[in-house]
Amino acid sequence: MIFYDCATAPSPRRARMFIAEKGLKPEIRQIDLAKGEHLSDAFRSVNPSATVPVLITDSGLVLTENNGIVSYIEAEHPGPALLGETAEQKGLVAQWNALAEQRGGQPIAEALRNGNPAMKGRALTGPVNFEQIPALAERGLQRVGLYFDLLEERLSETPYLAGETFTWADISAYVFADFARVVRMRIPEGHTATRAWFDRIAERPSASA
Amino acid sequence: MIFYDCATAPSPRRARMFIAEKGLKPEIRQIDLAKGEHLSDAFRSVNPSATVPVLITDSGLVLTENNGIVSYIEAEHPGPALLGETAEQKGLVAQWNALAEQRGGQPIAEALRNGNPAMKGRALTGPVNFEQIPALAERGLQRVGLYFDLLEERLSETPYLAGETFTWADISAYVFADFARVVRMRIPEGHTATRAWFDRIAERPSASA
Repeated sequence: MIFYDCATAPSPRRARMFIAEKGLKPEIRQIDLAKGEHLSDAFRSVNPSATVPVLITDSGLVLTENNGIVSYIEAEHPGPALLGETAEQKGLVAQWNALAEQRGGQPIAEALRNGNPAMKGRALTGPVNFEQIPALAERGLQRVGLYFDLLEERLSETPYLAGETFTWADISAYVFADFARVVRMRIPEGHTATRAWFDRIAERPSASA
Repeated sequence: MIFYDCATAPSPRRARMFIAEKGLKPEIRQIDLAKGEHLSDAFRSVNPSATVPVLITDSGLVLTENNGIVSYIEAEHPGPALLGETAEQKGLVAQWNALAEQRGGQPIAEALRNGNPAMKGRALTGPVNFEQIPALAERGLQRVGLYFDLLEERLSETPYLAGETFTWADISAYVFADFARVVRMRIPEGHTATRAWFDRIAERPSASA
């Protein structure tokens, strides 16, 4: 397998953590987003959407999107199960992963890409340039606060988002909670359940993969 | 099973089509979004996020988010497989479903909720009110055009988004392509592969479920 990565970006970090938890060792190719390598003709011939992560399977299939990559890997390498074992667990993992993406990943990206002068004209990923919308950056910051509240409410009830065990939903939510620092947002002091969960995940070898 | 639905909305339509394709007959409870029933205390005690669809399993588990609901149902009722059979298919289904959500569902929602006077103060789903951002409505319309281009490019190569068979990715992409009419966008005349795909899906009994 070949894994197109960018060591500093949150999206490929999600797939990278998943791959590390599975104990897999694909060939890694770094794409330097800061240098615009994802917009090069060479990389766009791999993924026309100009995004990382990308996984190329041993059979040559090109998979993009985190959920595409992890669905493939889980089916090929079922242990340890990270997308749930029972039907109920599978439902909860997919649900909490979706909530992390919508309520964590999306507003952080909106705040960063619409608020940072270095991302002028790059308000969305992909090959097409979109101008920044300052009101969207503001709204994003407000929503990141609500994201931390959502995590705290859930993690006060259960050790991991989908229940008793660490899953893909925790990887997604953890990567976004960590990446919120780029918009100067952190898990609030009083959110003790979330902070304990974050610290437990940070100790896993995959968190520094 | 109990399924909280809204007959006129695209999100519950996705899960409803999936349930119909599986031949399941849950108890249906309609939530009238136009009347604000999703924001009532009664419904928020079912789903604090105030969104449909919601599925309550026979064991009493409450599942929200389309991907949570369909992951549960596919595991409980594997046939016909709608999330892929091989690892490669599972990867492609999850990938194309994610692309449909990000590049179809999201911009249509942005265009509608930020551009329609009837949705003033309701620029996002959920219990918190957010003001409309007119620039986001404009950007949404532009992105819906790119969504139709993405579908045409893919469907010129393969009969369904994830390959030879109809899957969850087609349900998502079809529901968004149809719902684009609310922002006065339609599959362009020249997009013949997409139009043929759309017509094939429209003939399935699940499309009018």
